[in-house]
Amino acid sequence: MDRCRKLASFSEDDKSLRRTFLCPPMRDCHREIGRWMQAIGIEGNLDAAGNLRGLYPSDKPNAPRLLIGSHLDTVPNAGAYDGILGAVLSITLLEELRGRRLPFDIEAIGFSEEEGVRFGIPFIGSRALVGRLDRELLNASDANGITVQQALQDFGLNPSEIPRAQISSNAFAYLEFHIEQGPVLESLNLPLAAVESIAGQTRLEFTFMGRANHAGTTPMNLRHDALAGAGEWITAVESFAAMSAGLVATVGKIEALPGAANIIPAIVRASLDLRHSSDQVRHHSVEALKSQARDIASRRGLSVSCCILLDQAAVAMDPFLVKQTEMAIGKTQCQPHCMVSGAGHDAMILAEKVPAAMVFLRSPGGISHDPAESVAAGDVEKAIECGLHLLHQLASSPEFYGRINRA
Amino acid sequence: MDRCRKLASFSEDDKSLRRTFLCPPMRDCHREIGRWMQAIGIEGNLDAAGNLRGLYPSDKPNAPRLLIGSHLDTVPNAGAYDGILGAVLSITLLEELRGRRLPFDIEAIGFSEEEGVRFGIPFIGSRALVGRLDRELLNASDANGITVQQALQDFGLNPSEIPRAQISSNAFAYLEFHIEQGPVLESLNLPLAAVESIAGQTRLEFTFMGRANHAGTTPMNLRHDALAGAGEWITAVESFAAMSAGLVATVGKIEALPGAANIIPAIVRASLDLRHSSDQVRHHSVEALKSQARDIASRRGLSVSCCILLDQAAVAMDPFLVKQTEMAIGKTQCQPHCMVSGAGHDAMILAEKVPAAMVFLRSPGGISHDPAESVAAGDVEKAIECGLHLLHQLASSPEFYGRINRA
Repeated sequence: MDRCRKLASFSEDDKSLRRTFLCPPMRDCHREIGRWMQAIGIEGNLDAAGNLRGLYPSDKPNAPRLLIGSHLDTVPNAGAYDGILGAVLSITLLEELRGRRLPFDIEAIGFSEEEGVRFGIPFIGSRALVGRLDRELLNASDANGITVQQALQDFGLNPSEIPRAQISSNAFAYLEFHIEQGPVLESLNLPLAAVESIAGQTRLEFTFMGRANHAGTTPMNLRHDALAGAGEWITAVESFAAMSAGLVATVGKIEALPGAANIIPAIVRASLDLRHSSDQVRHHSVEALKSQARDIASRRGLSVSCCILLDQAAVAMDPFLVKQTEMAIGKTQCQPHCMVSGAGHDAMILAEKVPAAMVFLRSPGGISHDPAESVAAGDVEKAIECGLHLLHQLASSPEFYGRINRA
Repeated sequence: MDRCRKLASFSEDDKSLRRTFLCPPMRDCHREIGRWMQAIGIEGNLDAAGNLRGLYPSDKPNAPRLLIGSHLDTVPNAGAYDGILGAVLSITLLEELRGRRLPFDIEAIGFSEEEGVRFGIPFIGSRALVGRLDRELLNASDANGITVQQALQDFGLNPSEIPRAQISSNAFAYLEFHIEQGPVLESLNLPLAAVESIAGQTRLEFTFMGRANHAGTTPMNLRHDALAGAGEWITAVESFAAMSAGLVATVGKIEALPGAANIIPAIVRASLDLRHSSDQVRHHSVEALKSQARDIASRRGLSVSCCILLDQAAVAMDPFLVKQTEMAIGKTQCQPHCMVSGAGHDAMILAEKVPAAMVFLRSPGGISHDPAESVAAGDVEKAIECGLHLLHQLASSPEFYGRINRA
């Protein structure tokens, strides 16, 4: 935790933490983590996408490789643990091995970009590891018109070497520790959880259209109030999600036009964010909430349209790894708990190429992306303990780590 | 109607009608109306507040005075009838008298300001007639930092003469023709209505406060979503008003913060505009809707606060004049109808000093403050006919117009 707080001092902003993709303070972060790596005999190197990577080798030649990591970048006005705790824990676990070698290499990874702040595109670091940092992404530009390609070069990296950043063919698993960023573990009074999947997500924009009229001269029965319709729908969205196990549905943005206190709203635009671990449930829910919007609109003489801005499939974590993680949590004298992650993580990207798993640490108050974000020291201890159990369990699972060589 | 359209060509904007207080095109408007006045032997003069006034004298000396008028200013992107139709009709009625003299003088008035566009303060013209164009109002400034006082001087008027703009002590009534600006007469299939009162109005701002959280990681049962609470309240506002005869309640403005699709809203600010002809009903309704907001908030673990931005009492029109107006409407072979005006009008200000009444003309589609604002030629004919009946009825009501002299 001291290390997390130390790294939080490397910020683009004076009085709060902001450390976006390839910003100058990211170098300080690399230098600091590099020192900790060096102390256990590991050399930290940047790949061409700016990810910091260090290899703790097996005592066997041509061993399979386990990846452990999380991201080094932050949102603006960030807390000290989101991402960085997982990156720090990957080093801590190697230290705790105290020189002991396992039948597989362990590669610790600090991803250069996950939050999507600078270029509006998340997971730039982990995309490089699965071969998806492509030409289109390289040409994306930030608020100052600097492209990803240029930013990499300015940081001293060579974009033509990006293909070499891909995970090695002998990687057999990816593990990530991360704060939960939600209130579930706190509400269950549990320090840790195994993540069984990362929820799929649909993001939509609904537009309700009625008729602008004078708020004083239009009787209630002659109105076509787009906001009254949207209000009814917002409560319907909430009720629907409350009755659908595991579904979360959020209207986070709303705009009513013309937006004057004395004019009945003619147009309301509202966002809808829907997430579930089952893509089928999610797609069914999208249709149900569209249909509710149409029913409400037609009963009120409004019209409604909607467009899908994002449709991202759920990503399952590897069942064997999830089970091992649960077992490892159980060995720490904690009740094993399995949960769905409602937020995206690098593990979601890595899972495209390699079995992946995550361990969540309880987030006090469910707070994240905020300077008040925290984690309990006792929970971090449990996470380290759990991680060591997991490493030892994997070390005695040649049928799992050996699959790579057999394949 | 041709005259209204002609006057609509005097605009500050090239492609739409905007004629705010003391703008240069207002001079063209004055000149044009002045010509029509001249043609029937009346001299149009500007008072110190920029109101255009012309006297059609009685054949008796020291006669009481009837005021007829409406406003000459418009909102931006205005229609051709709001205000100006009433000003034009005051001239038309005098023309239709064809030189016949009544036992009272008639003063036609085109008010300089009613909409509140330039200084954010409405009724500047009619306020001068009741002695409320005071020092504070004279010091108000527009978007360019020009005060009302300066604007009057720049237009060639003398602010020190404002007290002389007050209505003469022998004024016994004020009449105003105005488009309804709402859909009621159209829905009743009636061309005209007598206005019995102008609704009182409360404008409030409600703030619902919950907790911002991640839209993906916060289960439905652990949320404190300010927008879900506000949505429930918006529908409660609508239901409450629909069940309260004569009440109109509108949420026209809404803002949800932080306002990101993937963050549960922490703060929602929403306006509430409430109008009713009874101040008691209105105040009771304000309390009921505050209480509903508190109930909804407390059930959801939110807090709510509210502040009153405006509390304007209802203004009754003069019962004798309302009855006479209804009778006059009846004489035009139309069903007499009496209604509450949900919008403010100059008559509301004049009523402070003199018995006042209004005649509403049907607004096709209920549309106003829009280039599509219109009025039917047949309805304007009925209004002229009604106005002439009303003048003749008043001429044979010495017990009414004579009160002034008796007082």
